[in-house]
Amino acid sequence: MSHEFPADSVGLVQPQTLHFDQPLALACGRTLNCYDLVIETYGTLNADRSNAILICHALSGHHHVAGYHTADDKKPGWWDSAIGPGKPIDTNKFFVIGLNNLGGCHGSTGPGSTNPDTGKPYGPDFPIVTVQDWVNSQVRLADHFGIDQWAAIVGGSLGGMQALQWSIDFPERLRHCLVIASAPKLSAQNIAFNEVARQAISRDIEFHDGHYYGEDTVPRTGLMLARMLGHITYLSADGMREKFGRELRSGNLSFDFTPQFEVESYLRYQGERFSTEFDANTYLLMTKALDYYDPAAEYGDCLATAVAQTRCKFFVAAFTTDWRFAPERSREIVDALIDAGKKVSYAEIAADHGHDAFLIPIPRYMEVFRAYMTQVDADVPALTTGEGN
Amino acid sequence: MSHEFPADSVGLVQPQTLHFDQPLALACGRTLNCYDLVIETYGTLNADRSNAILICHALSGHHHVAGYHTADDKKPGWWDSAIGPGKPIDTNKFFVIGLNNLGGCHGSTGPGSTNPDTGKPYGPDFPIVTVQDWVNSQVRLADHFGIDQWAAIVGGSLGGMQALQWSIDFPERLRHCLVIASAPKLSAQNIAFNEVARQAISRDIEFHDGHYYGEDTVPRTGLMLARMLGHITYLSADGMREKFGRELRSGNLSFDFTPQFEVESYLRYQGERFSTEFDANTYLLMTKALDYYDPAAEYGDCLATAVAQTRCKFFVAAFTTDWRFAPERSREIVDALIDAGKKVSYAEIAADHGHDAFLIPIPRYMEVFRAYMTQVDADVPALTTGEGN
Repeated sequence: MSHEFPADSVGLVQPQTLHFDQPLALACGRTLNCYDLVIETYGTLNADRSNAILICHALSGHHHVAGYHTADDKKPGWWDSAIGPGKPIDTNKFFVIGLNNLGGCHGSTGPGSTNPDTGKPYGPDFPIVTVQDWVNSQVRLADHFGIDQWAAIVGGSLGGMQALQWSIDFPERLRHCLVIASAPKLSAQNIAFNEVARQAISRDIEFHDGHYYGEDTVPRTGLMLARMLGHITYLSADGMREKFGRELRSGNLSFDFTPQFEVESYLRYQGERFSTEFDANTYLLMTKALDYYDPAAEYGDCLATAVAQTRCKFFVAAFTTDWRFAPERSREIVDALIDAGKKVSYAEIAADHGHDAFLIPIPRYMEVFRAYMTQVDADVPALTTGEGN
Repeated sequence: MSHEFPADSVGLVQPQTLHFDQPLALACGRTLNCYDLVIETYGTLNADRSNAILICHALSGHHHVAGYHTADDKKPGWWDSAIGPGKPIDTNKFFVIGLNNLGGCHGSTGPGSTNPDTGKPYGPDFPIVTVQDWVNSQVRLADHFGIDQWAAIVGGSLGGMQALQWSIDFPERLRHCLVIASAPKLSAQNIAFNEVARQAISRDIEFHDGHYYGEDTVPRTGLMLARMLGHITYLSADGMREKFGRELRSGNLSFDFTPQFEVESYLRYQGERFSTEFDANTYLLMTKALDYYDPAAEYGDCLATAVAQTRCKFFVAAFTTDWRFAPERSREIVDALIDAGKKVSYAEIAADHGHDAFLIPIPRYMEVFRAYMTQVDADVPALTTGEGN
């Protein structure tokens, strides 16, 4: 069937669910006794398991990072632009794992999963998980595959925070850390936007204090509003001007409240679609993981101290019109790494696409990404059997 | 009682309601047969009625611009910082009128007023009014006072749009136009934020398609969300960082969804307070007036052409961290005025306060504002009786 897909696609892929039985202690003080992680893999793990790359996802991401689920699937995984044969993350060379994080709504254990203690969905009783919790769960995933050291851990946005945290908490377990369109912690403005989204969801009459699973409903309005708002922060003002301008759907002002400007109907469509696809409790958890992320907090609020113990090389990239996580935020990471004497490559990519740019195959971005991944590949140790690299 | 107020305050003030009987044709094609405007005035109108200043309000503003309503009133009018004896708009020299615009919820005819055709509140049947409609209604207000020519028309944000429109539609009727923290039209991003606010309100289950007046309820959640979101856009990211940082209300993360960061509780408080004070239908109308404003549209999309017919002098001011209406947007107005050969003073004020800066007595801002108003005063014609100026 793969002949139906582009030549540089990983083609047809299938998720798999891994069950973990070892209790996972969480930052909040609670413990998950067991949990599932749903994953996808692309490419082939080499004999000494040294060519593995972990892809960490952002707020609304999941395990389906590249390829297609069915022969007539029109839409590939969310980062298909960067992952596949010959692409920056070249599946001819690397073994790539994408996962859905704990607390997610795409198959991994989360608020919609059955709480073994009650036999009902966790709902709002699912613990608030942190970036560090996710990293700890991903360590189990590495162990499951016998991967002692990742060739690279790669993430954009909230995914970049996970990659960065890996480098701090498990310095020996990755050779490269790629932090794209991310930040070392949220700003007050970032938190404020998240709080509006959370209020929109939790005050939706269909939210039922998070127990909507049993009510045969979902807080669609709240999720729609959260997504509309999120979407504005993912795009740049310039990008929106270029994409929509002040264009009217019909020629004239209607003097009513139907959507008139193109940008209005676009946002409504995006919001409504999302509200049927995503879980509200998961959205709340993901925004909280973002708000809480602050790796320097344990190190006297000094990021350079936090990264002092890292052993990997770093690639940090930012996009000029990203105002959710502006280039200055990436430069905070770069500066801390330099202060700590670490090896870091930094690319600031000119792009009109705002925060979303990290998902878009902008030529200059793909070039530097590819160039860096060539170094990642060169750093894959030659197999003792001579087959490697 | 005025001894209880600061010396540079206009002191105790009282609103008054003016009734207008002459039908007002609106841009939407409908006509208001009669309407009320509630106003306040400060200072004394001189004998030839040449020292009058009109203050136009922004989205959530009203007629109570300066002074106090009661002897123990803690909070003065919304622009008290700029208006009073010895202040930039000096009430020892000028006669100042503030009004609540048509469609408002502070006493002027609006959605909460009784529709004479039905005997019930207009609700969603109140016509969508435009900046031009407001200017036309304000012309009646000038006529009521016998003011042939305003010494100045002054407005910030949406208020600046009204001042600008006056200069285009009634060039003979003002000598000075002060456009502060404004824009010649909304950007796609501006419209997008407004649309999220509108969706939050209109999808609130308590909105009842705008007929909530009869349901003994108001869409508080929607209004709260709209205000929280608006508030983020009124502040700058830098200002929020300085004001709130990532400070926690208590020392530790709570791992629940109670407000933890200072910025969260601040926004919730602001949103909740607003939701008990402001009318939802008015909020919808005001955002629509913003979206629709585009004075160049009737002039081949050329702002320089639109302002070619103006006769007044202009003062345009913008604030460095205002990202709702960034300085570039003010410079579009300035550039158009220069292209059209008009006299314009432009001040770009360094301030951390974002869009809200226009309400704050920032020293440099007050200085240039005062300096310009001195020129406005100098341009008040000497009275034929010799008493003037």
